[in-house]
Amino acid sequence: MKRVLILGSGMSSTSLINYLLEHAKDLDISVRVGDIAVESAREKIKNNPRAEAFFFNAEKTDQVSAEVKEADVVVSLLPVKSHPLIARQCVRFGKHLVTASYVSPEMAELNKTAFEKDVLLLNEMGVDPGIDHMSAMQVIDRLKEEGNRLIAFESATGGLVAPEYDDNPWRYKFTWAPFNVVTAGNRGARFLHNGKFKHIPYHKLFRRYETIDIPGYGEFEVYPNRDSLNYQETYGLKDLLTMFRGTIRRPGFCEAWDALVQLGATDHSYTMEGTENMTFREFTNSFLAYNIVDPVEQKVKTYLGLENKPIVMNKLEWLGLFTEEVIGIPELTPAQALQHILMKKWQMGPEDKDMIIMQHQFDYIRLASHHKTFSTMVVKGDDQVNTAMSKTVGLPLAIAVKLILSHKIGLRGVQIPVHKEIYEPVLRELESFGISFEEKDIRVS
Amino acid sequence: MKRVLILGSGMSSTSLINYLLEHAKDLDISVRVGDIAVESAREKIKNNPRAEAFFFNAEKTDQVSAEVKEADVVVSLLPVKSHPLIARQCVRFGKHLVTASYVSPEMAELNKTAFEKDVLLLNEMGVDPGIDHMSAMQVIDRLKEEGNRLIAFESATGGLVAPEYDDNPWRYKFTWAPFNVVTAGNRGARFLHNGKFKHIPYHKLFRRYETIDIPGYGEFEVYPNRDSLNYQETYGLKDLLTMFRGTIRRPGFCEAWDALVQLGATDHSYTMEGTENMTFREFTNSFLAYNIVDPVEQKVKTYLGLENKPIVMNKLEWLGLFTEEVIGIPELTPAQALQHILMKKWQMGPEDKDMIIMQHQFDYIRLASHHKTFSTMVVKGDDQVNTAMSKTVGLPLAIAVKLILSHKIGLRGVQIPVHKEIYEPVLRELESFGISFEEKDIRVS
Repeated sequence: MKRVLILGSGMSSTSLINYLLEHAKDLDISVRVGDIAVESAREKIKNNPRAEAFFFNAEKTDQVSAEVKEADVVVSLLPVKSHPLIARQCVRFGKHLVTASYVSPEMAELNKTAFEKDVLLLNEMGVDPGIDHMSAMQVIDRLKEEGNRLIAFESATGGLVAPEYDDNPWRYKFTWAPFNVVTAGNRGARFLHNGKFKHIPYHKLFRRYETIDIPGYGEFEVYPNRDSLNYQETYGLKDLLTMFRGTIRRPGFCEAWDALVQLGATDHSYTMEGTENMTFREFTNSFLAYNIVDPVEQKVKTYLGLENKPIVMNKLEWLGLFTEEVIGIPELTPAQALQHILMKKWQMGPEDKDMIIMQHQFDYIRLASHHKTFSTMVVKGDDQVNTAMSKTVGLPLAIAVKLILSHKIGLRGVQIPVHKEIYEPVLRELESFGISFEEKDIRVS
Repeated sequence: MKRVLILGSGMSSTSLINYLLEHAKDLDISVRVGDIAVESAREKIKNNPRAEAFFFNAEKTDQVSAEVKEADVVVSLLPVKSHPLIARQCVRFGKHLVTASYVSPEMAELNKTAFEKDVLLLNEMGVDPGIDHMSAMQVIDRLKEEGNRLIAFESATGGLVAPEYDDNPWRYKFTWAPFNVVTAGNRGARFLHNGKFKHIPYHKLFRRYETIDIPGYGEFEVYPNRDSLNYQETYGLKDLLTMFRGTIRRPGFCEAWDALVQLGATDHSYTMEGTENMTFREFTNSFLAYNIVDPVEQKVKTYLGLENKPIVMNKLEWLGLFTEEVIGIPELTPAQALQHILMKKWQMGPEDKDMIIMQHQFDYIRLASHHKTFSTMVVKGDDQVNTAMSKTVGLPLAIAVKLILSHKIGLRGVQIPVHKEIYEPVLRELESFGISFEEKDIRVS
């Protein structure tokens, strides 16, 4: 019997653990789930005889080492900062590792020694990053094999509330780590557009959105995501004219969120004074100039140029930013205080379901004509536990574990799933879970 | 004979070295000046028999240790990141240290051991920080001794080109480290205004300037400086309603500089692609959306709302931002590329002189009436070597060395010059160099 070690039992572990337990007999595996919140791990394994839950502290090198040593494959769902320690132990004991996180510089450094020890450190194996790489590479490889010349690649993903539960003025709810949503994009963005490199600072990011159409779901906004250029080489697309990655939101979101960015309310670089007794209104006022005449609402309008933007002002008001409610927590950064305010309004209700949308656009030249392929995925959550996010993150991880255990992946070293030997079997199996892409091809000229 | 060790022989060392060498006989000292650019150190000591120049590498712990061991007092003009290593050696060998830099967290940590070893680590002993602390504390202590209640303290400092040489549309030239000017304020600012904490993100900083009047020199703009609240406790001003520190520029500067900030041209967080062959115009265009119709000038106007701001557009044009000149240096961040562009325009000419302006405003209640004291310093440079910046940074350092050598300062541990035993003799002697404050007191109500 082989042993799968899962570190971390947060939201996205549900689909991973369920899949592995369902296949436990076929694969002849046992599953050991460790979390600092051991109760959460225990809940997830549901008394399955092939599974056990245990208290796990990722900061104790001894425990990491002892656990990794006994495992055959390790899956880490811990925060990205914990991964290098775990990866080093995996390399040491010759165990394969799968994560859904971006490859950090510390992880990248392990490539050579992992290769020498015949170990695979497979990262970016969730949805974004993960399914985005796999589904894009499948189309890119096919277009190339057919002899086309790819000239533009644009890709966007968003975690949203499903349309039936889209019932607030922002048309958004937290379906994933709220803090990451509040600070999203704060390092600005870079991409390539028609042969020109484009650089957008954070304070302009939410004014530089584009719109896309998702068949059956209408228009969405897409704001640029971090450094799109990172993947040009990995994807083998060095001659592209346009390379853009973005995040999807519903119409109207970007303009209103921009108001919070302009205000400085998403800043995480310093701690505010007196947030324990600060009202939401005082929080808002702390970003505005002293002025004894105008109420806070008017100061916001003037400062942010929202005089003729009642729809944006309504969204800000609906959040409670002008109320006398007290934050009540000491020593918060602006971003943390804003997260606290947003949590009261953007929390998913007990019946709410989430949705993941992903769309790639490929422009290519076939003979002398310009074509465009749209490839679109929409996945809805089943309920609060089996969310779209949990399925699209957890299932690719689980399938990767299966492929590794059955020796179907020969790659070694630090990898991400841009290789056919990974994306083909994973995408094929994801289809059986309703996670699939619809393609539409048009001739542009 | 006592030994003064000076580490670093950059711009601000001239006045320091000249002062110490002029007083070398009286003080019975020798002066040893170390720099990685040993020629620069040699130039500064001018064959004085009591001085020697030597090659110094601040990264070699052995050399730091050997040099500090032989010294009686150490002055470090090195970059702030070098100070903790030097300070640790000073503590180890029981030597006093003077710097013109802000106290870093690493420096602050040495307080206890320095105290135990009877060592003074005196920091912030230049102009800003330095003369600002000393001159403000002198007035604050006097106002308190007279029984007044201080309610507001606002302080501003600027390094500018002297009025006679103020001959470009920006009314600004580099009189100090250009890179620090380009990235100034990029961590935002915090201050206290009429009892309310105020927080300004970087992208709003240059729109939140105030104006001040400098007698004989007219109006200036002041934009907020980092964290004004840091000094509230140090200054003993915990009950203040307003505490504000700012940077002085000539009228029109802030609005035009804001355009560069909005564009993203001052960003230092990433390296741009292809700056070696990039024109200034392409640099500007890299921050703007792709658009085949409008020229770059029109795109800047639209993006930044400069349609009716010909004065700002003229300033941008004058910098050459729309020309085909090539940057010619690989792998620059936007801030570095902008610095390169600005250096061609903002360099001080061979005859140009600089100027330092500092103004404090103190609001206080005497009996039942509200008074305001303005305290203003203007210092002009003598020439390109004896600049206002070199004098106002170097002379306080030099006088501190003299006071330490003659046992006039009994303080130990990590200190800044907010204490009467430092500021009184230093300010008194600075007056003999024409570095002094004019006071004006008005009754407000």
